[in-house]
Amino acid sequence: MSVQASTRAELLALLEEVESGALSASSALEQLARLPFRDLGFARVDTHRELRQSAPEAVLAEGKAPDEIEAIVRAMLESGASSVLVTRADQDARAAVLRAVPEAEVDERARLAWVAVSVPPACGQVTVVSGGTSDRPVVREAQVRAELLGASVVVHEDVGVAGIHRLASALPDLERADCVVVVAGQDAALASVVGGLVPAPVIAVPTSSGYGAAFGGVSALLAMLTSCAAGVAVVSLSLFRS
Amino acid sequence: MSVQASTRAELLALLEEVESGALSASSALEQLARLPFRDLGFARVDTHRELRQSAPEAVLAEGKAPDEIEAIVRAMLESGASSVLVTRADQDARAAVLRAVPEAEVDERARLAWVAVSVPPACGQVTVVSGGTSDRPVVREAQVRAELLGASVVVHEDVGVAGIHRLASALPDLERADCVVVVAGQDAALASVVGGLVPAPVIAVPTSSGYGAAFGGVSALLAMLTSCAAGVAVVSLSLFRS
Amino acid sequence: MSVQASTRAELLALLEEVESGALSASSALEQLARLPFRDLGFARVDTHRELRQSAPEAVLAEGKAPDEIEAIVRAMLESGASSVLVTRADQDARAAVLRAVPEAEVDERARLAWVAVSVPPACGQVTVVSGGTSDRPVVREAQVRAELLGASVVVHEDVGVAGIHRLASALPDLERADCVVVVAGQDAALASVVGGLVPAPVIAVPTSSGYGAAFGGVSALLAMLTSCAAGVAVVSLSLFRS
Amino acid sequence: MSVQASTRAELLALLEEVESGALSASSALEQLARLPFRDLGFARVDTHRELRQSAPEAVLAEGKAPDEIEAIVRAMLESGASSVLVTRADQDARAAVLRAVPEAEVDERARLAWVAVSVPPACGQVTVVSGGTSDRPVVREAQVRAELLGASVVVHEDVGVAGIHRLASALPDLERADCVVVVAGQDAALASVVGGLVPAPVIAVPTSSGYGAAFGGVSALLAMLTSCAAGVAVVSLSLFRS
Amino acid sequence: MSVQASTRAELLALLEEVESGALSASSALEQLARLPFRDLGFARVDTHRELRQSAPEAVLAEGKAPDEIEAIVRAMLESGASSVLVTRADQDARAAVLRAVPEAEVDERARLAWVAVSVPPACGQVTVVSGGTSDRPVVREAQVRAELLGASVVVHEDVGVAGIHRLASALPDLERADCVVVVAGQDAALASVVGGLVPAPVIAVPTSSGYGAAFGGVSALLAMLTSCAAGVAVVSLSLFRS
Amino acid sequence: MSVQASTRAELLALLEEVESGALSASSALEQLARLPFRDLGFARVDTHRELRQSAPEAVLAEGKAPDEIEAIVRAMLESGASSVLVTRADQDARAAVLRAVPEAEVDERARLAWVAVSVPPACGQVTVVSGGTSDRPVVREAQVRAELLGASVVVHEDVGVAGIHRLASALPDLERADCVVVVAGQDAALASVVGGLVPAPVIAVPTSSGYGAAFGGVSALLAMLTSCAAGVAVVSLSLFRS
Amino acid sequence: MSVQASTRAELLALLEEVESGALSASSALEQLARLPFRDLGFARVDTHRELRQSAPEAVLAEGKAPDEIEAIVRAMLESGASSVLVTRADQDARAAVLRAVPEAEVDERARLAWVAVSVPPACGQVTVVSGGTSDRPVVREAQVRAELLGASVVVHEDVGVAGIHRLASALPDLERADCVVVVAGQDAALASVVGGLVPAPVIAVPTSSGYGAAFGGVSALLAMLTSCAAGVAVVSLSLFRS
Amino acid sequence: MSVQASTRAELLALLEEVESGALSASSALEQLARLPFRDLGFARVDTHRELRQSAPEAVLAEGKAPDEIEAIVRAMLESGASSVLVTRADQDARAAVLRAVPEAEVDERARLAWVAVSVPPACGQVTVVSGGTSDRPVVREAQVRAELLGASVVVHEDVGVAGIHRLASALPDLERADCVVVVAGQDAALASVVGGLVPAPVIAVPTSSGYGAAFGGVSALLAMLTSCAAGVAVVSLSLFRS
Repeated sequence: MSVQASTRAELLALLEEVESGALSASSALEQLARLPFRDLGFARVDTHRELRQSAPEAVLAEGKAPDEIEAIVRAMLESGASSVLVTRADQDARAAVLRAVPEAEVDERARLAWVAVSVPPACGQVTVVSGGTSDRPVVREAQVRAELLGASVVVHEDVGVAGIHRLASALPDLERADCVVVVAGQDAALASVVGGLVPAPVIAVPTSSGYGAAFGGVSALLAMLTSCAAGVAVVSLSLFRS
Repeated sequence: MSVQASTRAELLALLEEVESGALSASSALEQLARLPFRDLGFARVDTHRELRQSAPEAVLAEGKAPDEIEAIVRAMLESGASSVLVTRADQDARAAVLRAVPEAEVDERARLAWVAVSVPPACGQVTVVSGGTSDRPVVREAQVRAELLGASVVVHEDVGVAGIHRLASALPDLERADCVVVVAGQDAALASVVGGLVPAPVIAVPTSSGYGAAFGGVSALLAMLTSCAAGVAVVSLSLFRS
Repeated sequence: MSVQASTRAELLALLEEVESGALSASSALEQLARLPFRDLGFARVDTHRELRQSAPEAVLAEGKAPDEIEAIVRAMLESGASSVLVTRADQDARAAVLRAVPEAEVDERARLAWVAVSVPPACGQVTVVSGGTSDRPVVREAQVRAELLGASVVVHEDVGVAGIHRLASALPDLERADCVVVVAGQDAALASVVGGLVPAPVIAVPTSSGYGAAFGGVSALLAMLTSCAAGVAVVSLSLFRS
Repeated sequence: MSVQASTRAELLALLEEVESGALSASSALEQLARLPFRDLGFARVDTHRELRQSAPEAVLAEGKAPDEIEAIVRAMLESGASSVLVTRADQDARAAVLRAVPEAEVDERARLAWVAVSVPPACGQVTVVSGGTSDRPVVREAQVRAELLGASVVVHEDVGVAGIHRLASALPDLERADCVVVVAGQDAALASVVGGLVPAPVIAVPTSSGYGAAFGGVSALLAMLTSCAAGVAVVSLSLFRS
Repeated sequence: MSVQASTRAELLALLEEVESGALSASSALEQLARLPFRDLGFARVDTHRELRQSAPEAVLAEGKAPDEIEAIVRAMLESGASSVLVTRADQDARAAVLRAVPEAEVDERARLAWVAVSVPPACGQVTVVSGGTSDRPVVREAQVRAELLGASVVVHEDVGVAGIHRLASALPDLERADCVVVVAGQDAALASVVGGLVPAPVIAVPTSSGYGAAFGGVSALLAMLTSCAAGVAVVSLSLFRS
Repeated sequence: MSVQASTRAELLALLEEVESGALSASSALEQLARLPFRDLGFARVDTHRELRQSAPEAVLAEGKAPDEIEAIVRAMLESGASSVLVTRADQDARAAVLRAVPEAEVDERARLAWVAVSVPPACGQVTVVSGGTSDRPVVREAQVRAELLGASVVVHEDVGVAGIHRLASALPDLERADCVVVVAGQDAALASVVGGLVPAPVIAVPTSSGYGAAFGGVSALLAMLTSCAAGVAVVSLSLFRS
Repeated sequence: MSVQASTRAELLALLEEVESGALSASSALEQLARLPFRDLGFARVDTHRELRQSAPEAVLAEGKAPDEIEAIVRAMLESGASSVLVTRADQDARAAVLRAVPEAEVDERARLAWVAVSVPPACGQVTVVSGGTSDRPVVREAQVRAELLGASVVVHEDVGVAGIHRLASALPDLERADCVVVVAGQDAALASVVGGLVPAPVIAVPTSSGYGAAFGGVSALLAMLTSCAAGVAVVSLSLFRS
Repeated sequence: MSVQASTRAELLALLEEVESGALSASSALEQLARLPFRDLGFARVDTHRELRQSAPEAVLAEGKAPDEIEAIVRAMLESGASSVLVTRADQDARAAVLRAVPEAEVDERARLAWVAVSVPPACGQVTVVSGGTSDRPVVREAQVRAELLGASVVVHEDVGVAGIHRLASALPDLERADCVVVVAGQDAALASVVGGLVPAPVIAVPTSSGYGAAFGGVSALLAMLTSCAAGVAVVSLSLFRS
């Protein structure tokens, strides 16, 4: 079964056979195990991820050589990825992406490089708000990721609760969002305030911006995890140290 | 504007006026500020939460006197809550709920008491999986919460990765879910394995079950936060110590 | 120089002599060192504290035998303390205070016992707000302490940011306060929201109420310490485990 | 209502209307929400902070581009800020401030740049003491902040308790202060000793100076938080790593 | 070489032979390895410790059955121990010691039981000071241990720095001590103040008394470890939870 | 392929087919996925584990009801387990095991219950040493586990390095062991000393025995993890709190 | 007894004499103590380690001057070491090794230098798997160490559980291994999945690769320590910061 | 009373007057308070420390400008210090010391500069042992400090317990020492082994050398604090990061 021939719909059909008893559960797992990947020697590119999860994996540039990054990006595109996103990409890593795909876009401050081959059709609105200006790199990464998944993204930066009236103008966009992303460091109180106001699920993303007892984002992480507002879940991957 | 007269649709209309310029942003905030709550002296019951967020707030029994719990439950029902869920409810707290609502349901091991007045129409499938038998109380809380929100819930317990073949029979339910909840303690590796297989968003919920270096759930929390699978977000509220 | 004869004014006069050069700095320290205390064998009651700091020391009952508490309370009153406040006082400790001062007041839930002998004249307004009902014991301790210092105290409980409109009715009292005390557990976001709104200094007091990643109050403590609002200082003494 | 026309007195009048019942609480919140801010695209400068809290916000230079800093400083001054204080300002950031306000003052070691437009009239004495010479940058930041608020500031450095007699000469200034700031790293014992001697509130500020088990200021932070002296509150924002 | 025949002087002579070359270093280690111990099956009582270190080992009662404690105490006395000290001894453990040695002394609050068979001749003065009354159990343990080693012990309790003048009366005993022990919880500032005043070595012993951010003694431990006074060393074994 | 018919040898043959190319890798995974388990509703007993890993899973009693424990033990024995080991088994749990298997053995102090059906033939020597008497429960668990796997086990307790000569008599058993287990709390220095002496792999098992800065076993855990001796690996599951 | 003359067999004979009673235990320790080492002034090279433990000690380059490294390598080879492995070796350190042994091999990315003089005969298969490409330096160190001990090593990189099907092709090599090494950062879930599948002992090695809440490898370390799979032991030495 | 005229003997006489009742305790404190210090503006050099504590304070170079260091060194020498020790002195700091005292000695690797003016007569033997070569900078600091206090110092480096026979040759010097200093990183097991062997007090000094779970010295610190050997006290100041 080649990647090209496979479709998500086929996979679902397969699993429905399991449900109906026409296929054993173990056979379903076997199908999953038969999934292809590209073995580059130094990496096994999970070219099947997009079929399985509707989105290709993001490539973490940190700890990879430029040549490796270039090869991975090429392999993903050759395997039919709808987009490629390379994160934590320094100067050399971004250059490697551009060698593989000259039309790639880059964001130096956010250390990103990406290319959209065939972004899915519009699938909902994501509103991203941040506590302060220094959260911008994480805001950008959230924005690009969401856009590559087909979301329409609106961003309101620097609306932290120390001047809570600044949040007012963002309220309509927060109210209508299908998903809200709150990016904040320090006390991350913005996550709880937003979480108490909006009906959509809130993804709280702690950042390491801040000083004093911010402890590189740990305080923000803990505050978000203990948010007393309902519907707030935490994704911690964007704690960063430049 | 009374609670009864208000509807979520009206709120959205209001916000659309903001968007079109017919209403200022600050007026929108004013509307939100004009929200009612029930002041019981010892508590300010946020009766407006359901309008704002499509679900009433859960009541944490811990640290409240039985009389207070009884009064809060009564106030919520009188204000038209679609359901009431009381968590971490010991013997006395559950009795207090039953005094307020004799038809309430209770679960002793999960320390829950709840009553469904008018559960929303079916709105999607939630599949809950757990790593082991001792995660059951948290599984039950997740299940009841989701059902009160209108979800159809399927549960597969004790499918931890130490015997990963046990996960196979849960795969069809995981594949078809609109949202997956993974409840696990110790190393919480189940969250990452499931996160790598399913297309739906995964809510990872660490528990304090386990021993040794489990550190009351901290290890599970950290493992879930650093899951290398995409689409995994963490809700930490169910770490528990009996 | 006896305690009775001494007055705060005299102390200031003394120090002004230092400033003018009429007295050496070391002589000033000598005066301070000559201060009396009551040696009860098991404790050295700092009867001079009130002169030095305008308020008698609070007595921590925890770890003291009832007889010791009774003796300390008697010693303080005999030394002319304007009030006595005994904290973390269990049943036996509160009984000991009542033996020493039958007219003492007690609060079982807040584990307090106190007696006001000669409260100072009204010296300003303190507004205390709390995030939730379970913060009540700490709210009460803050209230009693402030009242014994001569403050007029207003309390607004259960105004956490998950339902931020509940905070609206407390705004006038927050605006007019000479000092604001914010008592909160979990994410303690209330401290930052209040800190961004009011002109008075804000004393943020973390509590151990909450669950999940609240970690007994550590998350609240860190969030308060990293509050991005100006004028917020933290007093950690009320983290508690019942 | 423009910023220029608004005054703090008007705000208080407004809130008194709330108190008297002439205006609803929610209308008060609406007023707050209607507050202006300067949207610079990359930042929303809270130009209203000074009305609300009697002091403009400090600008954290870290994580902002020089052009952004310059623009923020200009915006604040154009909005009528009484002063501007830029913290953690490296060489480039200080140059940016000087471009915006050639008459700004800078302190390289403390990484500060500031300009006083119209400092409030003298409003009390602040005495700042430090444990050691290496706490100087934090001492300077505390001093400049307090002076921009209209305080008269006296500084006594290097009076740590390992040579407690050095504290003697600072006693008169500590005794007469309206507010005391204790800046210390390592064991921060100075905060407790000063807290036990003076009648004024003590703001304890931990620093990351020190070595061994100082853990970048955590030990100082914890010691200050658990100070057994009354009247000590902690502000943690000055833990620093150069 | 039997225990009875061995003497410390002989051991030193042995080692001097090593130094002079008359004996190889490895033979010295062989001598040490040939040391006897009492094998009780469940424990190997190090009866040789007194020869090696001039003091018998203390027996930790916690985690041992009463019968085991009784047997260990008997074995130590039969082996000629100069004294026996049993720590963390609850009711049953103390009874076990009394069965083995009816003339043993006990201290319930400090959970100690001990018997002095042949205390060494007076060998110096130890002055023990404590921060507060609740540090008493640790003070007592330090006192008994030191007395069993032949020290003359003076104790000054409740001289914490929040009322630093209380320390004045202890100064002569601190000045003349051969060794000072400072027992304190919370911020443990007493250790630094004493460490800066006295010429003798200071053993700082953190306790878990206190509340708030005391974190069971961790704050005291860290403050003592980072004491800026010279000559302060930390022994952490007395952090306790009753 | 039924469980009964399967044998480990067959599994290996299967995998060798994969290696030779006669069978695809995905088919191997399919075989693994087709493994049976016993679904008891509340638990999925991994009856296949013994085939896969040569040993049945241990049953953690903590957090399971006695009836559940009894059912799990019965299911394991019916599935042909060579032995059953139930850990952290309190009075009720041990009784449940005895109901299922009257000939089971129990150890109250170590909270164990176990039954050996068909222990494998002798497969090597394990030497277990412990630092102190209070480590005994963990020693016992290690001993029983190893014996059920067919090992010949020798135990030397209370040979901690504070009296290092006690270790001498254990040396021959340490030298000849095929695997050494070091059980220790506090500083766990025994692990490093043994690790530096013996040729066999050393499994270091930290325990929570101890006091002071032992922090419930964390210090022992860290010391073992950083052991400078080669061949030391850490298993942390036996940190315990009674 | 010279190093050359000694053999491991002789040592075992010696210990068997102890067992039979022909030699006292203390004499055995004496033999161990008589072991030679090379005193280089700045280091005492444990040339006897290979006799005692079948493998020479690895040399940590970090913190040593190049000249010291060169001298240590020379001393080990002169003492008859079967191999030399220098870890964390930067450019200068690797050059120093090459000066001592021109035929040494180096790996820049893994910061290794080594030379095999007389590797033991093949003694079993080690299979090393890693979670991702950035774990490569640690994979390489594990591989080289194992090969120098005589193991046949197979490596499968980048088979983390986010794309679990990639693990399928490694299964035969995992099944047949005598020892499995799992190298992983972030959530380290791979260790538990592998631990649940294979019969051989699993050495789990956390790495500091990853970001967000990976906390430099602490999350991986904790997850590995709490692995619910049997037979997983942790070696933490390879947490690294480049 | 000038510094020159004062002598330690006079101070003791003073305190004996207190003891006899001829002088009040508060007068003793007054004498202490009258102690001189050199106010350099940026520092208050505690020139009286040597009288009070028999040794001048060490000067921490870190965080001080070279000019400040030079001035402090000059001031100490002018005040009659018996020696000066500057720690954590980089290139510039060491040059500053040499400007002030051309005959000063320096140690680049240990970052020290010192000058001995009038070292006290020989007062006992200190034996310093270290676990490994990379602990050398801390060993050197301990050695220089002790020698400036008049001690005769013997050093044995690289005698860690992984090759415990290396410790044998150090035993005679350990046995005869008046004080033993153990410097070690990682698991710091050397402190416990030495603490169990020698009669003298053991000062355990953790270092940050090591890797993996060494956590910059925290593991060593904890292991030393929980040493099960008697007579071990911890001084943490030498944890270092180059």
